[in-house]
Amino acid sequence: MASEQSSLVSKLYRIWLSQPEQDELITNQYGWDVLTTEPGGVDYIEADAGGVEAMWATPKDAHQDRVLLCMHGGGFIGGSMYTHRKMFGHIAKQTGARALIINYRLLPEGMHPKPVDDTVTAYRWLLDQRIAARHIAFCGDSAGGALSVTAQLRAREQGLPLPAATILLSPWVDFEVTGGTMQSNAGKDALFNQPWIKQLADDYRGSASERDPLVTPLHADLTGFGPIYVQVGDQELLLDDSRRLVSHAQQAGVDAQLEVFDEMQHTFQMMAGRAPEADEAIHRLAEWARPKLGLTETEPAAAA
Amino acid sequence: MASEQSSLVSKLYRIWLSQPEQDELITNQYGWDVLTTEPGGVDYIEADAGGVEAMWATPKDAHQDRVLLCMHGGGFIGGSMYTHRKMFGHIAKQTGARALIINYRLLPEGMHPKPVDDTVTAYRWLLDQRIAARHIAFCGDSAGGALSVTAQLRAREQGLPLPAATILLSPWVDFEVTGGTMQSNAGKDALFNQPWIKQLADDYRGSASERDPLVTPLHADLTGFGPIYVQVGDQELLLDDSRRLVSHAQQAGVDAQLEVFDEMQHTFQMMAGRAPEADEAIHRLAEWARPKLGLTETEPAAAA
Repeated sequence: MASEQSSLVSKLYRIWLSQPEQDELITNQYGWDVLTTEPGGVDYIEADAGGVEAMWATPKDAHQDRVLLCMHGGGFIGGSMYTHRKMFGHIAKQTGARALIINYRLLPEGMHPKPVDDTVTAYRWLLDQRIAARHIAFCGDSAGGALSVTAQLRAREQGLPLPAATILLSPWVDFEVTGGTMQSNAGKDALFNQPWIKQLADDYRGSASERDPLVTPLHADLTGFGPIYVQVGDQELLLDDSRRLVSHAQQAGVDAQLEVFDEMQHTFQMMAGRAPEADEAIHRLAEWARPKLGLTETEPAAAA
Repeated sequence: MASEQSSLVSKLYRIWLSQPEQDELITNQYGWDVLTTEPGGVDYIEADAGGVEAMWATPKDAHQDRVLLCMHGGGFIGGSMYTHRKMFGHIAKQTGARALIINYRLLPEGMHPKPVDDTVTAYRWLLDQRIAARHIAFCGDSAGGALSVTAQLRAREQGLPLPAATILLSPWVDFEVTGGTMQSNAGKDALFNQPWIKQLADDYRGSASERDPLVTPLHADLTGFGPIYVQVGDQELLLDDSRRLVSHAQQAGVDAQLEVFDEMQHTFQMMAGRAPEADEAIHRLAEWARPKLGLTETEPAAAA
């Protein structure tokens, strides 16, 4: 039984879609973040990550040399390091690492492959800052989930080492938009409908094929990838994206794990600090991530 | 003629008062900040200011040795360094100074004089960090406006130097709640009614008299205070608080200046980045403040 608080995300999505009088208060560029409480004890410091606008979310007690490279969602048309700073701040705080949240280019300028390239640029910049690849995890939600995978393909093309791990929240990884849950979850998903996702996919890929591995991770060769951890809500049109990605990765020999959350909506982790399901998901995520980053203790260490 | 955008603050206040279904999204502890855009180029770094929880809002190009000590509004029952970080961030960025935003104790714990003492503690901490009093301005909105004055009385009692200047936005400085605009602006003010303000005043002052100068700045001896600059909206119940404070300060020989903004509501500067009136007010505030802090140029200097 979902918590009462967890209905907040559905309410916000309904407000976005219904556009009532007060919508401008919460549908503007930054409105998404009303879902998320301030984690507290996290500093937000803007940075130029090799030419890519970015923001460090630095928990007071984080291991400075462990980094989550974070790609926000928003269908390649919205979201920013500002809308997602608190959610990634919660994740960083639980994990005991710093988060670098990037403002990759958005549409209309940011057509494929620009967001992929921006992500690789930020990753290369992190490596240049002497952060070891084995101490970096990529973390992305929704469209940022696609980038979390495709940027690794591009980085590998360029001879860069792959990061230690990949963390995906409600990832969008099929730009053909063919998942069975497009039909079976229609009406349950408070945000999406299939034609809209298809339109977003077409706007993003431009002249690239929807079957291009750099567009659709489901067609990518994931051999050699580090462990992948995926969280998704069972109400989502994108549920099958997560299921198929994990299966596809496992077939390539990758340690991939899926957690499906009952009665949860797209990117429900944005309710961090407010809905117990979001906090539990982030707790589980952090438990999974710490050993992948070489952090063996169960809680962030202030003395690190 | 007020801008269309400037109605946002009235809308938010109406939502707070009417409590529709989606209110919980924007009436929580952090909801106030939906009014304010991200200034950008400002870092937010939490700090312990001598035992008082605080946050630096540090514009990338600020003069590091010039500081606005910022006390947020919220009737001593709400608001925080989180709700106000963006507004004070805009003010700091325009001024070319850093802002230290403090979480003074709130009711029920934070009865008078605890918020006054917390403000003095943070001020003493700033002086201990070798920030010169002549390079510090106190800046407060609403209830934080009262603290911006009363904390100076307390600091003077303790032998501390007074700050260079005081900046007040819609300050609440009469805890007897007797201003003539309590009646003449009734119905125009989208947030307040007189009995509510009286209740907030009684809850805050506890056993102290409403005529105590440490409670009601209108009864304080302001002789020797640095220059005071006040902004207020002409729709406010608290309009007469500002008028009387400026008159009271001038009678004590203080350089005090009042700017009344047409068709504006309580703390309309929270719409910074969104309503032109808020941006214009902050621009004027910064123009006033820079020379008081020894900054003679008209724009913040990146090279400082």
